[in-house]
Amino acid sequence: MFKFGIRILPRPEVLDTQGRAVEATLKSLGHSVLETKVGRYVQLSIEAKDIAQAQATAKKVSEEVLCNMLIENFEIEVLK
Amino acid sequence: MFKFGIRILPRPEVLDTQGRAVEATLKSLGHSVLETKVGRYVQLSIEAKDIAQAQATAKKVSEEVLCNMLIENFEIEVLK
Repeated sequence: MFKFGIRILPRPEVLDTQGRAVEATLKSLGHSVLETKVGRYVQLSIEAKDIAQAQATAKKVSEEVLCNMLIENFEIEVLK
Repeated sequence: MFKFGIRILPRPEVLDTQGRAVEATLKSLGHSVLETKVGRYVQLSIEAKDIAQAQATAKKVSEEVLCNMLIENFEIEVLK
């Protein structure tokens, strides 16, 4: 069983309204923050015979189910 | 300027309805997934004089603004 973390963020060319809202809030509280982006984080374990097959499944479900590829990008990290 | 990624996930003892829904969907599509959790991912850059101060700010804003500590946990990663 292999465990993955998938980080999903809006594409740079898409207006990230949540990110703008969080940045404005943090600035209004006096914090020096910049370039705030808000997305989703999915953790899952995949049963597969080897890591390559598990990674292929993780990529496939990210592209087809978890992530809206029109407006979002994802990164997959292997967790221990 | 220091860049951080903040992974926010529901606490283990809290029912993760999004995670359950995603897991059921992926299983119905024929994928062998387990232990699916869905949370949020926030990326931000912080202006500070050193990394320790920036990390302290990241922890503070995570606890006070980004994360609902009653039902969520967070992890901070330093990005390059």
